[in-house]
Amino acid sequence: MSKKGLKIVTIGGGSSYTPELVEGFIKRYDHLPITELWLVDVPAGQEKLEIVGNLAKRMVEKAGLPIQVHLTLDRRSALKDADFVTTQLRVGLLDARVKDETIPAKYGILGQETNGPGGLFKGFRTIPVILDIIKDMEELCPDAWLINFTNPAGMVTEAVFRHTNWKKFVGLCNVPIGMVRGAADLLGVEMDRVRIDFAGLNHMVYGLRTYLDGKDVSKEVMEKYKGSRASMKNITATPWGNEFIEGLGIMPCGYHRYYYQYQAMVDHQQEDVKKGESRGQVVKKVESELFELYKDVNLKEKPKQLELRGGAYYSDAACNLIASMYNDTKDIQPVNTMNMGAIASLPMDCAVEVSCVITKEGPRPLAMGRLPIQVEGLVQQMKSFEQVATDAAVSGDYNTALVAMTINPLVRDENKAKLILDEMLEAHKEFLPQFFK
Amino acid sequence: MSKKGLKIVTIGGGSSYTPELVEGFIKRYDHLPITELWLVDVPAGQEKLEIVGNLAKRMVEKAGLPIQVHLTLDRRSALKDADFVTTQLRVGLLDARVKDETIPAKYGILGQETNGPGGLFKGFRTIPVILDIIKDMEELCPDAWLINFTNPAGMVTEAVFRHTNWKKFVGLCNVPIGMVRGAADLLGVEMDRVRIDFAGLNHMVYGLRTYLDGKDVSKEVMEKYKGSRASMKNITATPWGNEFIEGLGIMPCGYHRYYYQYQAMVDHQQEDVKKGESRGQVVKKVESELFELYKDVNLKEKPKQLELRGGAYYSDAACNLIASMYNDTKDIQPVNTMNMGAIASLPMDCAVEVSCVITKEGPRPLAMGRLPIQVEGLVQQMKSFEQVATDAAVSGDYNTALVAMTINPLVRDENKAKLILDEMLEAHKEFLPQFFK
Amino acid sequence: MSKKGLKIVTIGGGSSYTPELVEGFIKRYDHLPITELWLVDVPAGQEKLEIVGNLAKRMVEKAGLPIQVHLTLDRRSALKDADFVTTQLRVGLLDARVKDETIPAKYGILGQETNGPGGLFKGFRTIPVILDIIKDMEELCPDAWLINFTNPAGMVTEAVFRHTNWKKFVGLCNVPIGMVRGAADLLGVEMDRVRIDFAGLNHMVYGLRTYLDGKDVSKEVMEKYKGSRASMKNITATPWGNEFIEGLGIMPCGYHRYYYQYQAMVDHQQEDVKKGESRGQVVKKVESELFELYKDVNLKEKPKQLELRGGAYYSDAACNLIASMYNDTKDIQPVNTMNMGAIASLPMDCAVEVSCVITKEGPRPLAMGRLPIQVEGLVQQMKSFEQVATDAAVSGDYNTALVAMTINPLVRDENKAKLILDEMLEAHKEFLPQFFK
Amino acid sequence: MSKKGLKIVTIGGGSSYTPELVEGFIKRYDHLPITELWLVDVPAGQEKLEIVGNLAKRMVEKAGLPIQVHLTLDRRSALKDADFVTTQLRVGLLDARVKDETIPAKYGILGQETNGPGGLFKGFRTIPVILDIIKDMEELCPDAWLINFTNPAGMVTEAVFRHTNWKKFVGLCNVPIGMVRGAADLLGVEMDRVRIDFAGLNHMVYGLRTYLDGKDVSKEVMEKYKGSRASMKNITATPWGNEFIEGLGIMPCGYHRYYYQYQAMVDHQQEDVKKGESRGQVVKKVESELFELYKDVNLKEKPKQLELRGGAYYSDAACNLIASMYNDTKDIQPVNTMNMGAIASLPMDCAVEVSCVITKEGPRPLAMGRLPIQVEGLVQQMKSFEQVATDAAVSGDYNTALVAMTINPLVRDENKAKLILDEMLEAHKEFLPQFFK
Repeated sequence: MSKKGLKIVTIGGGSSYTPELVEGFIKRYDHLPITELWLVDVPAGQEKLEIVGNLAKRMVEKAGLPIQVHLTLDRRSALKDADFVTTQLRVGLLDARVKDETIPAKYGILGQETNGPGGLFKGFRTIPVILDIIKDMEELCPDAWLINFTNPAGMVTEAVFRHTNWKKFVGLCNVPIGMVRGAADLLGVEMDRVRIDFAGLNHMVYGLRTYLDGKDVSKEVMEKYKGSRASMKNITATPWGNEFIEGLGIMPCGYHRYYYQYQAMVDHQQEDVKKGESRGQVVKKVESELFELYKDVNLKEKPKQLELRGGAYYSDAACNLIASMYNDTKDIQPVNTMNMGAIASLPMDCAVEVSCVITKEGPRPLAMGRLPIQVEGLVQQMKSFEQVATDAAVSGDYNTALVAMTINPLVRDENKAKLILDEMLEAHKEFLPQFFK
Repeated sequence: MSKKGLKIVTIGGGSSYTPELVEGFIKRYDHLPITELWLVDVPAGQEKLEIVGNLAKRMVEKAGLPIQVHLTLDRRSALKDADFVTTQLRVGLLDARVKDETIPAKYGILGQETNGPGGLFKGFRTIPVILDIIKDMEELCPDAWLINFTNPAGMVTEAVFRHTNWKKFVGLCNVPIGMVRGAADLLGVEMDRVRIDFAGLNHMVYGLRTYLDGKDVSKEVMEKYKGSRASMKNITATPWGNEFIEGLGIMPCGYHRYYYQYQAMVDHQQEDVKKGESRGQVVKKVESELFELYKDVNLKEKPKQLELRGGAYYSDAACNLIASMYNDTKDIQPVNTMNMGAIASLPMDCAVEVSCVITKEGPRPLAMGRLPIQVEGLVQQMKSFEQVATDAAVSGDYNTALVAMTINPLVRDENKAKLILDEMLEAHKEFLPQFFK
Repeated sequence: MSKKGLKIVTIGGGSSYTPELVEGFIKRYDHLPITELWLVDVPAGQEKLEIVGNLAKRMVEKAGLPIQVHLTLDRRSALKDADFVTTQLRVGLLDARVKDETIPAKYGILGQETNGPGGLFKGFRTIPVILDIIKDMEELCPDAWLINFTNPAGMVTEAVFRHTNWKKFVGLCNVPIGMVRGAADLLGVEMDRVRIDFAGLNHMVYGLRTYLDGKDVSKEVMEKYKGSRASMKNITATPWGNEFIEGLGIMPCGYHRYYYQYQAMVDHQQEDVKKGESRGQVVKKVESELFELYKDVNLKEKPKQLELRGGAYYSDAACNLIASMYNDTKDIQPVNTMNMGAIASLPMDCAVEVSCVITKEGPRPLAMGRLPIQVEGLVQQMKSFEQVATDAAVSGDYNTALVAMTINPLVRDENKAKLILDEMLEAHKEFLPQFFK
Repeated sequence: MSKKGLKIVTIGGGSSYTPELVEGFIKRYDHLPITELWLVDVPAGQEKLEIVGNLAKRMVEKAGLPIQVHLTLDRRSALKDADFVTTQLRVGLLDARVKDETIPAKYGILGQETNGPGGLFKGFRTIPVILDIIKDMEELCPDAWLINFTNPAGMVTEAVFRHTNWKKFVGLCNVPIGMVRGAADLLGVEMDRVRIDFAGLNHMVYGLRTYLDGKDVSKEVMEKYKGSRASMKNITATPWGNEFIEGLGIMPCGYHRYYYQYQAMVDHQQEDVKKGESRGQVVKKVESELFELYKDVNLKEKPKQLELRGGAYYSDAACNLIASMYNDTKDIQPVNTMNMGAIASLPMDCAVEVSCVITKEGPRPLAMGRLPIQVEGLVQQMKSFEQVATDAAVSGDYNTALVAMTINPLVRDENKAKLILDEMLEAHKEFLPQFFK
C-alpha cells in the first residue's frame, strides 16, 4: 500500500476499547506489519489518552514488536500520510449517552442510542466531526481508508455518502458477526463453516440465508432460531415467538426487538432508568473501573474485564477488516458501504449494511436483489429517517430535525418529538453548534 | 358502452349510504342515463335492503325518471351484463367494526378500522368476498368496471391486483376530495379552481403540490395549513404543529395523525372506548336512526341526517367517477389503482392512491416520480404491510397474519400482535373460514 | 394566466410554417384570446420574417381580430412578459439540412435529420441556441412555457432537462397525431373516437394500445396494420411485413423504418442524393415557391400549397397544445416531456414522448409501466445516444461527439463516424462555436 | 460436497477441447480430487468420443491418478449423483456453424455465431437441449452445478433463468480473462496483480475499472489501450481509434468490434466467406487435424496444436471455476449468472456477465451500479434481443423469431431478417423440431 511502512491512526484513541484494538494489531502483526500507530484524542480526553496510550505502549513492548505508538491531540499531523484511519470517538462522552437514553424515557419513548431519538442526537453530535475528519483526509491522506466504528454507524455512513464525495469509507458493526456466532451455536458447528447473507441497515440487518459448508441450511437454522434469545449484550433478550419467526422467514438481529417487541423494550428501559441503570450509566461504571485497571503499570495486556464492556469483538472486527483489505484476502464480511444496487429495495447511492467481499480496492457489496416484502418496508422507513436525520445533522435545521424525530419508527408523534427535541437540543447544546448559529 | 342501456349493480345495496348514491345517479341522469339499478344484499341484510330499496324506488319515482330499481339477494343474476358494479358491503356489519376497534384497545393499541389492526381484520373478512365477486364478474360481465368503496380500500385494491388478473377495478376514497375542499377553504376560493397532486396509499395519501388556476401555490397553502385541524369527520382533529408541517413540506391527510400524532389518537380512542363511544358504536346508533327515517313511506329523498354518517361525499364521488368514465370527461381524480410506475417509490404493479385522469378506458395514473424522502419510507412500510396482509387474507395462514399484525406501524410488537390476533380470530370466526380450514 | 392579455412569442418567426400557426391562432381566438403575437428572427432571416410577418398581419386583419402582430430581431424585448414562447428555428437554414443529409450518405450511412448523424449535427447547432433562449426566459418571463417544435425535438428536450433547471418546456411532434389518424382510417371511424397509448422517444414512439370509444381494440388495429404503409410524408413508405408486425405486437411509427427496414431506407436515400433530391433539397424548392406566394399582398390566408411542406398539422398541434394548456381542457396528447417514471424502462428525469393529459399546470405524463421487451432495448439505446449527444452539444467535446456518432444505431462504426464527424464539423463550423473554442 | 468422492460429468465429451479440460483436472488434482469423470456424447459423436475419451484415459494413467474416466452415450446414467456437470456440446457440429456464418453473409449481414443471426440459430439449436439436461438434473442430481461453456453463453444462460427454476447454473466465457491478460501486458505486470470490474453481457462485456494491487489505474490503462488491437483469436483485430477509446472511457471487449467497427467486420467476413475460410471452415480443418493427433496411442498429453483452436483457456477457466467453488476460494471471476441487481441498468432476474466472488454456494455478483450512459443503451438493446430470442427458442414461434432477428443490432432490417430466417430454418431443420411442430 505504501512503501514507507504501514501507518494507522485511531481517532478517539483514549477510548476504553483501544487495548482490544492494540491486541488485535499485535496478534496480526505477521500479515499486518504496522510501523506507526497514532492514537489521537481531544483535549477533554487527554488524561484517558495518556492512560490507555501508555498501556498500549506496554502491550507492544511486551510483544516485542517494532510498532511505534504515538499519542497526540494534533489530529492533522497524525493524519498526514496515514494508510488507515479508524474512528471510535464519542462526542460528549458517556454523559451525553446517558442523556440520549434518559431524556426520551421521560416521555415514555425509547432512547435507543443508535437508531432511536438518542441515536439521532448522537448523530447530530458525531456527523459534523466525521465530516471534518474527512476534509482533513482529503488534504493529508487522500489514499487512506476511514474505518468507522462510532455509532450511529448507519447514519454516519449515510452522511458521508450523502454529504461528501469521499468514497473510501467503511462503517463497521459487530452485530452481524454475533449472528454468525449464534447460528453456528444453533447448528453446533464451528463459526468458519457458516456464512450468512446479510442485508439491511446498521442495527437493522437481516440474515437472508444461512449456508453451512456452502449448503443452504436456512430452514434448519430458522427452525432452531425459534424461541432463541440471540441478542447483543446491551439489548434485553426476550425470546422470539415461534410463529412470528416462522412467518418472518429470515433472521432478525438483536436490535429488531425495538421494532418487533416494542413494549418489552420500553418496559425494560423504564425500569433501568428508574434504577439509574440506563446502559450509559452501567457502561460509565464499567469504564471507570477499566481505567483504574489500565493505570496499573504492570498491566501489559488487554484485561479480561474489557469483554464485559459490550462492544466485544468490535475492535477485533476492525483489525480483521484492515488486515483483509491490506492483504486482499477476499473474505466475505458484512459492513456499511454504498449500496450500488446490492439491495434493490433501497436507493443506489445510500449506505447499507450488506455482505461484502473484502478486497484491496475496498469492500464490494454482493448483489442481493430485493428484500422480502415482510421486511422491505421497515428497512425503507429507517432509510428515510436516516436520510432526513443526516440532512438535519449537516444543516442544523430545526424543522428537519423535528421531522426526523417524528418519523423515527420509535416515536411517531410530533408532539412528543418536539418536547424531546427541545430538551435534548438544550442538553447537548455545547456539542451542536450547527443548531445554534 | 352497451347498446341495451346502462346497468349498474350495487353490492351491499342495503347500506345506509344507498340513498346518497341514488340521489347522485338521479341528479346526473342527463349524462348518465341509467336504465337499471340493481341493489344486491345477503340474506342477513334483507330487511335493510327492503327498507332502503323502497326508499330508492320512491326517490326515482319522485324524480320521474325511467330507472328500474331491482332488489335482490341473487348476486349472480344481478351481475349479468352489468356495466358498472359498486361494492359497499360490510361483512359482519357494524358489530364487527365495534370489535375491530375495541379489541386492540384492550391492549393499548389503536384499532384503526382501515390501516390498523382493525383494518387488517376488516380486510380478512372483506377480501375473499371481493375476490368472489370478481370471479362472478369474469364470467357474467367481463367488460364491467368494479368500483369499490368498501374499506380497507387500499388493502382490497392490493388484493385484487396481487391475487387476480382482473384489471377493471377502482378503489374509491373521499379523503382526497376533502383535502381539496380544505385547501380551497384555506385559499378562500372555489374548489374547482384548486387541484392537488395526490400520491401515496389509501388513508396515507399526501398532497405533493397544490395548484390554483394552474399556478403552483404549494408554499402559500402549506403556510396556511400550519395549525390546521383539517381532518375527516371520524378522526379526532388535533392541530398540526407549525414546525412539523414546515419540515414535512407537503400536505398530510387526516389519517396521518395515526402515524404523526400517535399518542393523542390513542388517548382519544381509550376515552371513547371507555364511554362506549367507539366510532362503530356511534355509527350504529346513527344508522338505526337513519333506518327509522328510511321506513317512512312519505320520505322520497335523501334525509339531511345522512350527512352526519361520516362517509359524506363518498357515494357522490362514486357517481362522479362513473359519470366521468362513462362520458370520458378526463377530469383528474385521485383513486386507488395500479401503480404502473406513477409513484416510483413503490413496486410497479401494486395498488396506489394517486391523481388519475379519468377516461373511458379507466383511470390513468399521472407519473409523480419518487415521493419526498421524508415520507417515502412510511408509505413503503405501509405497502409492505398491505402486501403481507393480503397474502394472509387469501391464504388464511396464521403466521403470515401474525407478521402482518406485527409490522403494522401502529403495532410493532409481536407479543401484543399475537394476543390481538388470537382474540380477533375468535371474535370474527364466523366470517373467516380461510383461517379455520 | 396573465391579466394584461395573452402574449405569444414565436422564435424563428420567419419560417414558412408561420402562416399555419397564425391560422391556428385565428381559428381558436374564441378560447385563446391572444393580444400580442411577436415573430422573432435573426438578421440572416430578416427578409423572410418581413414577408411572412406581413402575410400574418394581413391574415389577422382579414379575420378582424384585435391581435397585434410584432416583427422583431430583438429577442429579449420580445420575450419580456411572454405567456407562451414557441421555437421553430432552423440554425443554418435548409442548406445545413442538405449537408446533414448528404454528407453521411457519402459514406453509405443514413443522414436522418432527426435521430441519425444529421440529427446529431442539427442538435449540435440548435441546442446551444435553445439553452440561450431559456437563459433569457429565466430572466424575462419566468412563468412562460416554451413550446418547441424544432427538430431534433427529442434531443433538444433532453438537453433542456439534462443541462438546465427549466421545467416549463414541451417538445412537440406531429408523428403521433398522424398515427391516430392512421388508426382511425384503418378502423373506418372519426379520429376523435380513437385514442392511442403512446410511449417512447421522439421519432421512436410506439402505440402500445389503441382504444375505440374507450374499448381496447389493439388486436383489431394491429391486424389491419399489417402491410400498412402508414408513414410520414417525408419517409419513404415501404409496407410492413405481416409476420413482423404480428411479432412486434405494438404499433411502430413511420420513423421506425430506419431501424427495422434499414436497407430500403439507405437505398432510397442513395437514390435521392444521386438525383439531387434529398429531402432538404426538395423542401428548399417547396419553400422558395411558398415565399413567392407569401409575397403576394393579396394573399390573406394560408395557401393550400403549404400542406405539401411536410410538417403538416405541426403548427396546428402547437396551437392546440397552447389552447389546451390555457383552458385546462385536459385532453390527452402525446408530447415530449420529463419522464417522471411514466416509462419505467427509462431514467426518471430524462425526456420521453408519452401520452400526457394537458392541464393548466402543464402536460402530465400517464404512467405506462415498462415497454414490451421486444422494443425496450432499442428505445434505451436511443436514449443513451441522446444523452451522450446532448453532453457533446453542450461541452463541444470532440471525443464525446465521436462516441455519440458511433453509438447511433444507424452508424455502429467508429471509423465512418470519425470521417462523417470531421467532415460535418468543418461543413457546419460557422454554427458550432462550442467545438472550435 | 459429497461423501462418495467427486463426480464430474462432461456433456459433449467428444469435443476436441476435452484434452484441455482433462489436463486442467489433472494439474488441479491436489485440491480437486475427482474420483469419476464421465464423458457423454450423442450417437453421432460416438467416434470422436472414443478417440478423445481414450486419450483422456491415457492422460490420467500417465499422471498416475485414481480418476476413473467413463465414456457413455447414456446421459441419464452419467448424470446420476453428479457434483458438477459441464456442457460443451455443439448441436449440428461444425457444419451447422459454417451455415450460421455463411447464410447471413449472402445477404450482406454478419453471421456472428454468438450474438448475431448465427448466434440466434445456435441458440435455437442449443437451448432446448440445455433445458432438457436441466430437467434430467432436477431429477438425478439436484444439488449439482451446471457449468456451461457452449455458446451463445449469454442467450443460453438467459434461457435457463427465464424458462426454468434452476438456479445452479454458471455460463463461462474466456473473453474477460483475455482482457485481464491484455491489461496486464499493457501495464507490464503479472496478471495476478490486475483486477478488472467487469459488467455487461456475454461477448458484450466492458471493463469498467482496472486495479493494480488494489489501486485504481483505469486512466493509465485506457491511455495505453488506445490503438490497441486487443482481441480474441477469432475476431479480426483492427485497432481502436484513440479518440473513440478516450470518449468511451471504459474498456470494450474484442467482440465490441461488431458494434463499433461494423464495416471492417463485414468486409473481413465477406472476404473469408469468398475464400471459403469462414471461421467455422477454418476450425473444421483444425479439428480434423487434432483428431488425427488424438488417435495416436502414444499421445498421452494435450497436444500443443490445440492452442490454435481458438477457445484457448476456456477449459482451463472451467477447471478453475470448479476448483474455486469446490474449495470456496473466493477469488473474483467474471461469469454469466443471474443479475440480482448487480447491474442496475438491467432487469433484476436476467442473465449478465459480471465480476463475481466465487464461493462454495456459487458465484455471487458484485454490485456495480448503473452502466455508464455511453454503453448502457447498447447493452440493454442486446438484452432485449436475448430475451426475445430465448422466447422464440423455447416456443418455436416464427413471428417471435423474426422480431428477434430484426432487432438484433447487426440486422435492423425485417426484410433481410425474413430471408435469412427462412433460409436458416430450412438449413437447420433437423435440429429445430420446435419450429416444425
